[in-house]
Amino acid sequence: MPMLLDPSTKYLPYPEVPFPPGYIRRWPNRRTTAAPRWLSTDLRDGNQALVNPMSNATKLELFRELLKIGFKEIEVAYPSASDQEFQFVRMIIENGEVPDDVSLQVITPARSDLIAKSIESLSGCRHAIIHLYNAVSPVFREVVFRNTKEQTIDLTLNAVRLVKKLTEEETARSGTRFTLNYCLETFSQTEPEFTVELGNRVLAEWGKATPEDKMIFNLAATVECAPSNHYADMVEYFSTHINQRDSVVLSIHPHNDRGTAVGASELGLLAGGDRIEGCLLGNGERTGNVDLITLALNMYSQGISPGLDFSALSDTVALVCRCNEMEIPVRYPYAGQLVFSAFAGTHQDAIKKGLDAQAKRWSEVDRSGKGTKYWAMPYIPLDPKDLGYGYENLIRVSSQSGKAGTAYVIKQKLALDLPRRMQVSFYKVIQDESERIGKEMTGALITSAFKQTYSLDSQPTGRLFLHSYRLFPLSPTSREPSSPMSDYSDDIQNLVPSDQSPSVIRFEGELTIDGIQRTIHGDGQGPVLAILDALRSDLAFALEIGESAAQTVHDDSPAHTKSVTFVELYERGMSPSKSGVGSFWGVGISSDVTTAKCRAVISAANVLVGDRTFPRPKRIFSPRPKVTAVDSDGWLHEVKLRAGGVAPRSEQEIYGSFRVETPPL
Amino acid sequence: MPMLLDPSTKYLPYPEVPFPPGYIRRWPNRRTTAAPRWLSTDLRDGNQALVNPMSNATKLELFRELLKIGFKEIEVAYPSASDQEFQFVRMIIENGEVPDDVSLQVITPARSDLIAKSIESLSGCRHAIIHLYNAVSPVFREVVFRNTKEQTIDLTLNAVRLVKKLTEEETARSGTRFTLNYCLETFSQTEPEFTVELGNRVLAEWGKATPEDKMIFNLAATVECAPSNHYADMVEYFSTHINQRDSVVLSIHPHNDRGTAVGASELGLLAGGDRIEGCLLGNGERTGNVDLITLALNMYSQGISPGLDFSALSDTVALVCRCNEMEIPVRYPYAGQLVFSAFAGTHQDAIKKGLDAQAKRWSEVDRSGKGTKYWAMPYIPLDPKDLGYGYENLIRVSSQSGKAGTAYVIKQKLALDLPRRMQVSFYKVIQDESERIGKEMTGALITSAFKQTYSLDSQPTGRLFLHSYRLFPLSPTSREPSSPMSDYSDDIQNLVPSDQSPSVIRFEGELTIDGIQRTIHGDGQGPVLAILDALRSDLAFALEIGESAAQTVHDDSPAHTKSVTFVELYERGMSPSKSGVGSFWGVGISSDVTTAKCRAVISAANVLVGDRTFPRPKRIFSPRPKVTAVDSDGWLHEVKLRAGGVAPRSEQEIYGSFRVETPPL
Repeated sequence: MPMLLDPSTKYLPYPEVPFPPGYIRRWPNRRTTAAPRWLSTDLRDGNQALVNPMSNATKLELFRELLKIGFKEIEVAYPSASDQEFQFVRMIIENGEVPDDVSLQVITPARSDLIAKSIESLSGCRHAIIHLYNAVSPVFREVVFRNTKEQTIDLTLNAVRLVKKLTEEETARSGTRFTLNYCLETFSQTEPEFTVELGNRVLAEWGKATPEDKMIFNLAATVECAPSNHYADMVEYFSTHINQRDSVVLSIHPHNDRGTAVGASELGLLAGGDRIEGCLLGNGERTGNVDLITLALNMYSQGISPGLDFSALSDTVALVCRCNEMEIPVRYPYAGQLVFSAFAGTHQDAIKKGLDAQAKRWSEVDRSGKGTKYWAMPYIPLDPKDLGYGYENLIRVSSQSGKAGTAYVIKQKLALDLPRRMQVSFYKVIQDESERIGKEMTGALITSAFKQTYSLDSQPTGRLFLHSYRLFPLSPTSREPSSPMSDYSDDIQNLVPSDQSPSVIRFEGELTIDGIQRTIHGDGQGPVLAILDALRSDLAFALEIGESAAQTVHDDSPAHTKSVTFVELYERGMSPSKSGVGSFWGVGISSDVTTAKCRAVISAANVLVGDRTFPRPKRIFSPRPKVTAVDSDGWLHEVKLRAGGVAPRSEQEIYGSFRVETPPL
Repeated sequence: MPMLLDPSTKYLPYPEVPFPPGYIRRWPNRRTTAAPRWLSTDLRDGNQALVNPMSNATKLELFRELLKIGFKEIEVAYPSASDQEFQFVRMIIENGEVPDDVSLQVITPARSDLIAKSIESLSGCRHAIIHLYNAVSPVFREVVFRNTKEQTIDLTLNAVRLVKKLTEEETARSGTRFTLNYCLETFSQTEPEFTVELGNRVLAEWGKATPEDKMIFNLAATVECAPSNHYADMVEYFSTHINQRDSVVLSIHPHNDRGTAVGASELGLLAGGDRIEGCLLGNGERTGNVDLITLALNMYSQGISPGLDFSALSDTVALVCRCNEMEIPVRYPYAGQLVFSAFAGTHQDAIKKGLDAQAKRWSEVDRSGKGTKYWAMPYIPLDPKDLGYGYENLIRVSSQSGKAGTAYVIKQKLALDLPRRMQVSFYKVIQDESERIGKEMTGALITSAFKQTYSLDSQPTGRLFLHSYRLFPLSPTSREPSSPMSDYSDDIQNLVPSDQSPSVIRFEGELTIDGIQRTIHGDGQGPVLAILDALRSDLAFALEIGESAAQTVHDDSPAHTKSVTFVELYERGMSPSKSGVGSFWGVGISSDVTTAKCRAVISAANVLVGDRTFPRPKRIFSPRPKVTAVDSDGWLHEVKLRAGGVAPRSEQEIYGSFRVETPPL
């Protein structure tokens, strides 16, 4: 087994930061209240780590995107590493690509020829930052450079002296203003006392840092080698021991070897960090630099303006991924495909309620002009719309999801508000289907299953299909045909008419039953009871009404209102359980409220019918109704009946024309 | 612009944890010295978040892998969510898949029917953990459940009471031992005082937590909503306020919405966490749960045994990715493809030196039996071999890399130790090629470029190709042919013989020059000066020697030793610069040390020759040498010369046979 049972024989724990006894750290008491200075090193640290480094054309494209996002300090190259890198700096300066308020940073090792070339590359730039680095930790001093501490200091000071001389010459020549950013590479693995000693020597050698013209120290966690609180301790130690604290900027440069670059950055900022160096989406050597998008949006979701704009996050992500030939995982904070999605049922239920409550709360603010539109959403810490996303993926449905998510999809896609018991019932359908196919139930699959389950297609899909129907008033108190004029949603609360309106009507419907057209008829108080009577008397199919509900939906404009009826039916004598076992729901949709009711009954009956056999019809409807008009949406109009299923009351009634609509769901 | 310029109008900052004034936090002073209890929720929280949840067969496969890794507590299902989930628990219990020392955890909401079903699923399990949860934060109480604090407590206590009753009944029935894990869902977004009040009420209601039979509190960061130090504060507050602290286990359950799940976990453990719940590779809703692999290996690289085995990490990763239909990014800590790779030249140089130093240090430990084989490697915080990886990808070369990486590849692939100035020279070739093709220079591409550049193929690739040669002693002090008997590596430090051995020899070589065979000859002290003389006198091509070096390489066994000569040449009168401009290197390899030298000269000359024209030959070598043997590796043996380029000394010398070998690189 390669992994050691006792890894302490091979790996040393991180050393303590030498705070005096009883020292109380400052950083755990602090909170971040403003954004730091941001330095993007996408074009340097990020580029160096690419399997295929960017061409200069690609670097330019990314440089422009960085400007658009709002970066004011950008590390653009390692000019002494190659001619291509050098030329990139020259090109953006000479072509006027660098706005006046943007500083260019380039990195150079502490070697005289490379320093000279790096400074030369920046000639003519308005403000440049020379990022001078050398690694200072014990393993580097001993193994890589074979230098003592004093030799390391000497080497560094020589380099600083040269930078000072050459930049002053360049300023005299071209007017370029320079800032020194001295990077203690491997800072977090170096003895804290030595980092301070070295820092103070560099500061003295530079000799011209002031509160107005600060020097930068890059405190690099070149390799993340300890928990994030250790990095914060290191930064606090340096911050509280370096001279002229008001004349230096502490720059945080974390890497992600332990997966805690973002955490270390946030703690490092509390501990004294003023500036942060990183890359978009955390590109960089090995596990990458810290991701500036995550950091910025972490601040944003705490009400702190990051000063960087990720309003079109998916575009930014696509561009970075293309330039860097990288992909981001689906669970990547803020930018991943699944981040603003919930699959678990309870999550979906809460989000659904949260969205409803928030819509209400916000509209109250709009109405009253008082209060603030705070975001307070279960499971979703940041409004995806702030980043240019929609809500359409908030709820996704798998076999592990619950009724709420499915209901949410139906609401989003079909504008239908399923009653709670119907949500339970329909979710069983979806869960079975999801387990059967072993895949996510996408919006399209759920919608399709919904239409199929409730026979909402314009073609017959179940055993029963209602082609057309007529209603005849039978009550002695009124001979008027029951033409539905009232708003369906007002009178649907109970499908069974109250005692106050005891008008009895006759339902006469033409159905396709198992592929054969026939007419059924029945009488009852209102169309629903009449159609149930028809099913019972002509088909020996006795159903009872459970719960029901109604709503109206709008097609395009409020003028195109449709009625929707939801009805729960169960077989007579089989009272459904509390959780809905034994019953089934139906849905009917039509611009005509009565038609919606009739369709809802047939929709439910289609499932409950199972494989029962029906008694032979007394008379079969024949010939077929003549369709005189079909509009472009597939709606049927003006169906004329030439012969009836039951004995006609009169010729006129039979040959009257009326609408039979099939909802274009 | 969707992002708000002042996000404080929409997002509230996290509230302070109400520590008393002057309170000194404990957690920033602590360090982790031992692994926590681990709970894998891959099969529950992870599974719930999948676009396509796992089948039970897949869940079983992953369950077995979790056991193999060493997990002793595994959350296996949400048994009340679906029959499939329920059946999974039954199946692993009834089929004896659960070792005696492993506890099964299942989750249940605080609803009586679901609690009953969950407990029922565990019947017959040796030790089970009931993970009871309800969300308790303000937004959930107010928006989702519309409960007051007291109602929330009542609901929770009712559920705990039922769990207690039903588990006691189940224990009496089947002997299954139960532990309660009460999860304060959205803990980190809840008023700290309320979490403690609720926790203490639950603890009292459970009423039987002891130091020997503890109750678990799951302190869930259901949504990561604040920096990691806030989570630590929340945990410390709970840990210091909950009753019977020695009878409760605090379980950390972080999510990664802010990209700081690992950091929050590490701080949460310092703050009082005893146990951690997460998933392999951080699967889970939205941004995922905390990644247990990263956490475990973070401990391991600090010398702490995690008690989990990731010795074959790539196998584990492949299995998890397959089961979860996920991919991990190339920069994922420990497991990503680029994590143990360096592209930047300075990194490569340091790693190369680090590997050499470590090999020396470790062999010293082996030799002396003293000391410890500590890992101390620049840029690489953990030995990839501990995780079952090799070092072959440690250094990868792009146009942004430096000489060291390229030299490392040549060393790895061809066993050649390039001299430093030659590294610089060859890296220019690689950099040009990399920029030209715009791609990573893989090991194969670098090796191929090396062979081509230095004419190491067995076929002529440059303008000059040495077929065979003879050396004749010319010095009056010795008439012996200069048969090279001494070890090449001992006498190569200077290719120019010292004054102490002034023997002059004649070089007579048969070359293909621009496709035409001809003989050249020259005299000098030793073969190198003689061949240079031949190039100068017969081809008017005057070269000088710069630096040179030699080594020996072994083919398979030390018996098959070959000599390697590296030689830097420059045109006479054009002294090369310090950085190597104006010179070029050559390489010669042969089992014969003199042949290696001659080949090295021709190898360098081949580049320096450029497009110069040569004077016409005085005599063309003809006819072709007769090859009498070619072995299976493409080596030429026993080349007989039938006619010479220069006037033969004697018939015998001309017709002698000797070896001309082409190295099978």
